[in-house]
Order: sequence, then structure tokens, then C-alpha cells
Amino acid sequence: MLATVMYGAGDVRVETVPDARLIEPTDALVIVARAAICGSDLWPYNGMVPGETGRRMGHEFIGVVEAVGAEVRTIKAGDVVAAPFAWSDGTCIFCREGLHTSCLHGGWWGGADLDGGQGQAVRVPQADGTLVVLPVGLDNALMPSLLTLTDVMATGHHAALAARVGPGKTVAVVGDGAVGLCGVIAARRLGAERIILLGRHPDRIALGQAFGATDIVSERGAAAVERVRELTNGSGAHSVLECVGLEQAMSTSINIARPGGAVGRVGVPQGEMLPAAQPSFFNNVTIAGGPAPARAYIEELLPDVLEGRIEPGRVFDWVAPLGKVPDGYRAMNERRAIKALIEF
Amino acid sequence: MLATVMYGAGDVRVETVPDARLIEPTDALVIVARAAICGSDLWPYNGMVPGETGRRMGHEFIGVVEAVGAEVRTIKAGDVVAAPFAWSDGTCIFCREGLHTSCLHGGWWGGADLDGGQGQAVRVPQADGTLVVLPVGLDNALMPSLLTLTDVMATGHHAALAARVGPGKTVAVVGDGAVGLCGVIAARRLGAERIILLGRHPDRIALGQAFGATDIVSERGAAAVERVRELTNGSGAHSVLECVGLEQAMSTSINIARPGGAVGRVGVPQGEMLPAAQPSFFNNVTIAGGPAPARAYIEELLPDVLEGRIEPGRVFDWVAPLGKVPDGYRAMNERRAIKALIEF
Repeated sequence: MLATVMYGAGDVRVETVPDARLIEPTDALVIVARAAICGSDLWPYNGMVPGETGRRMGHEFIGVVEAVGAEVRTIKAGDVVAAPFAWSDGTCIFCREGLHTSCLHGGWWGGADLDGGQGQAVRVPQADGTLVVLPVGLDNALMPSLLTLTDVMATGHHAALAARVGPGKTVAVVGDGAVGLCGVIAARRLGAERIILLGRHPDRIALGQAFGATDIVSERGAAAVERVRELTNGSGAHSVLECVGLEQAMSTSINIARPGGAVGRVGVPQGEMLPAAQPSFFNNVTIAGGPAPARAYIEELLPDVLEGRIEPGRVFDWVAPLGKVPDGYRAMNERRAIKALIEF
Repeated sequence: MLATVMYGAGDVRVETVPDARLIEPTDALVIVARAAICGSDLWPYNGMVPGETGRRMGHEFIGVVEAVGAEVRTIKAGDVVAAPFAWSDGTCIFCREGLHTSCLHGGWWGGADLDGGQGQAVRVPQADGTLVVLPVGLDNALMPSLLTLTDVMATGHHAALAARVGPGKTVAVVGDGAVGLCGVIAARRLGAERIILLGRHPDRIALGQAFGATDIVSERGAAAVERVRELTNGSGAHSVLECVGLEQAMSTSINIARPGGAVGRVGVPQGEMLPAAQPSFFNNVTIAGGPAPARAYIEELLPDVLEGRIEPGRVFDWVAPLGKVPDGYRAMNERRAIKALIEF
């Protein structure tokens, strides 16, 4: 079968790999129908040290179940399923608490042993725990929005929850990538009164405004902090969604948070340290978040997608077949695309 | 009058300063009856660059009101009052939300313009907002415990709230100083099932056990992390109270937190960066806390002190008159005393 393999910075290829197949009795074999390229895929795309062993890519996909192992109970051949960006058994103490990304028997797609979503088929471990059956056919027009539930919309929602967004709150979203834009959707959905989007790309800002952003701040660093303070009577935002992962973005996030406020961080941190230890302390700013338990959120967000109340699929502004994946990475890396959708 | 002035590391003196007096119509003049030396006073005691201008010390005190300004409404001469470690107007948006340490018109004791608690008298700004009238006389045997409400017990309580301590939770307290010991009291008071105290001083450990610690971990660094994981079936603690402020303590705190858990930090951070950005992210560990809004907590904790349900005053194991304050700093700095009480 064909799948996407990364060999080093800038070197991503679609090539023939061993066919995905059932191994464990708890596995399902899924034929991929839609997949996506994630902003987090750009970190290795820019920094991976070249090696002979490639890294299988992709952690967001929807597909059709081809076969299941002997112990799979709730998933059957023919089901249209969404796979969250981490797999999980659904039964361990952390899954039962809704934190599927810390599953004791779970893990991440790709790497050396597992298939990735940017390929024709995937062996899905812990299929009963991992997969969510979708009540629609693959031809459904909502497929792009449904695909966002596997990561980017769930992640924006997680940022909003971690930042304690609620009715009447002033929210700031740091980052105008697909996650930040989904963060705007999530903030609005949770009742935020005001949503300040920090970003500088006109196409993304326009989409952010369509999603509910009420104010745009295009400055960076100290100027951005000053501007957000101006917009909030000097206080800062109750809730800040950090959707980048770079130290500068975290520093800005902490410094635009209101005393007693919270930063929900979902950008994968690229360093070992968090900045602004003193402002966050003296202002009692809470720092929360991490990888979103998308598995928990898919079912929560699904009705809103199916009934058209949210349209996160609009973040996909680049669509192409599997063979064009390297172009998709390039387009996203050069900020020509917000997010790439791969059709099979 | 006499007051404590610090001139540089290791150089703290009791000397004659201008008498405290009313200046603003919202001031009260308080004759100090009890004061304390704080663990945070040891940071300048160890690091202050010597200068000609001294720094007035002390931010924990109980006293008797001598006089009030024309606009003071709720405090009157003769009242026995406790002063939290930050002063505040009680009416601004942050005070109304219970975050008095971020009061728009508040501030900290001492420095160049204000009196400190380690002196014979204090001008108290924003007296109506700042002071809490105590329903007891100065001769009451509970004075030491009441004094802890001005900082150290309120701070332990804040750490416990920030770390989301609750019934059935496993709690770890990092640091066996007076704040950590009060954190143990707070954790028990909030219903923690298990309280693991990380410390290595036999006298403090014994007091911690008297306060409710169920397990003691005397290792440090990686060994401490390993030991806490052993004690918690590999998972870590739901709630971690970081009561030190050093990077090593924060790193340990994050690494002993359970996935989805929380670190409540009340140790004043001594660096600009927070460590362990990646473990805290990947485990969805929340980092919360800061200066405790003691003003909000005094009234909440007061009944428990008055009715003897908690005895935080036991952290005072060194008592002396004002003239001996330099000895008190020395005793605390050399870990011969947990916390020093000054009687006037």
C-alpha cells in the first residue's frame, strides 16, 4: 500500500510500505477515506534529523472498517469511523476519567511500529476504545468538519476548557492556525462574550472573524500585550488559548491573561522550559492543557457538526489526493494553506 | 519607634525609624502585638545587594488599632486586628472576585514608603479593606494560630485549592517549611485521603505527621519522583503543593503529579522560567497558584482556628521579643527554627 513517510526536514515522500493488517485480536483494519496534515507535522518537517529509518506520518483520519480482530466487540466491518489522534483502550483509569491521551495501554500513530493516517490503510490498536462510529456515509458533505474532530477541533475545544472559557468571558486566542481558528469556534460555542484573535494572515483572520472573533490583534510580543490590555481596560483576558507552542507565544499568552485568569495550552511545547514564571505567579494565572483527549470530545462535539451549528471543516483550504501530500506539507509550511485535506 | 530593617544579605537590624502615623484618611494606625518572620524573608536575607537604603521587613502581624483616618468605617480604635500579607481596598474588581493580592489599589508591606510588620507600629493603608477584626483579646492562647492566617496558613490553603485537593485525593506536599506544613493541614481539612510530605528535617516531619501526613519521602530529585510513583501505583499524586519556589522543587512537583492532576504553587519563584514544560504538557498537568489572597481566606479559616479544629500555630517553634529578630532570621536560615514568632 501507499503511505506517507518522512525521512528528514523537508523530505516527506509517499511510497510503498507493507500492507496494514490485523495483528492483535483487539485491532481493526481501516481503509482510509480522508486524512489531514497537522500543524504539528510541520515541527519534524522543519527539524527532523535525516535518517535511514523513515517516520510514518498522519494522525487524523476517517475511514471504513475492513476487518476486525476476534476480541473487537463494538466495531464491525463496513462501519464509517473516525480515529482520534491518540489511540486508547477506553477502559483504564485515565480513559474512564476522560483523559484518553494518558491511556495506560494507548499511544500515538506512526513511528516505527504503527501505521499513520496519511496512508491507504491503518491497523488500529484497541479498536473498541479508539474508534468512533460516524452515523453518516463517506459521501456526506460534512466530512471535512467531521475530520477536524479527530484533532484540530477537539484540540481547540480542549484549549478553551483548559482556559476556563464560559459565558461572559473575554477570551484571547494566540495563533491563527487551524487550531487557533477552531479555538475561536470553541470559545464562541462555550459562550465567550468577546474573542480576541492574535494573528496576522489576512485569510486566517477573515475565517476567524467568520467563526466569531470580535477583535483582531496583529502585533507581536510586547506590542501585542499592550494592545490586548488596551482592549480589556488594562486587565487582560480571562481565558487565553495558546495554540502555537513556541516560547514567545506562551510568554505573550501569560502576559495578556487577567489576574486570576487561565492559559489553556495546546501548542506542543518546543522547549524544555516555560517562560514568564514570575508574571504567571504574581497574577495567579493558571497554566493548563496538553494533548486533547479527542476521543472524549468527538461524541460531545458530533451533534454540533451534524446539525451545522459549527463548521470547523472550513479550515481546510487545500484538498488533494494522497500522491500530492508533499505539496500539502509545502503549502502549509509556506503558509499558503491553513490546513490540508487528503482525499483517497 | 523600633522596627526591623534589612540592609543586605545577612544584615538585618532592629533600629529606630520614624514613628508610624496616619497619612491618608483611609489609613489605620496599628500597634503591633505579634509578628512573624517568613520563609520568603530569607530570600533577601540570602541575596540582597547591600545598599544605604534599608528595606523595612515583615508582612505578618496582629495588633491593636490605635487610631483611624476620617474615612475608615468598619475599623475602630481598640479593635484587635489581623493584617494579611498584602493590603487591599476590598472593593475593586479583583477584590470582589476574591483575588485581593491583585487589588488595583493595594500593595505589599515594607519597602521604602510603608511600615513592615516586624516593628512596633504600622500605618495600614485601605484599613477597611485590609484589616480583619478578631473576636478575641491579645491574651488569647490561640494568638500563634491566628497569626498564621495572615500568611502561612492562608498560603497553604491557597496551594491546596490551586492543586484541587478534595475528598479521596492523593496529595503530595513539596517542602517541609511552615508553608508546606500548613499545606498538610489544608489538605487534610479539604478531605485528602493520603498526604505525602516531601521533606528531610526530623522535627518538621514529626509535625507534618501530627498535622496529617500519611507518608514521608525524604529523597530528592529523581529518587523522590521514583518514590512517590512507587507509593501511588505508578500514577503520581492528584494534587501537588509546591511550597518552595526553587526550580528543582517545581520540577519534582510536576513530575510527581498524576496525568490530569494539578500543581498548586505558592513558593515565590526564584527564576524567570518554569521547568518541565514537556512533562506538564504531555500529562495535562495544570500549574496554578501564586500569592494567596489571605484577606479572603482569613474569615473562611477563622472558625476552624477558634474552635480548635486546626492548630497551625504549632509551626512557631521560636519565640522572642523584637530585639531578638536578627537571631530569629539566623535560626530560620540555619534551619534551627521552623518559624519565628515575635512578641511585643
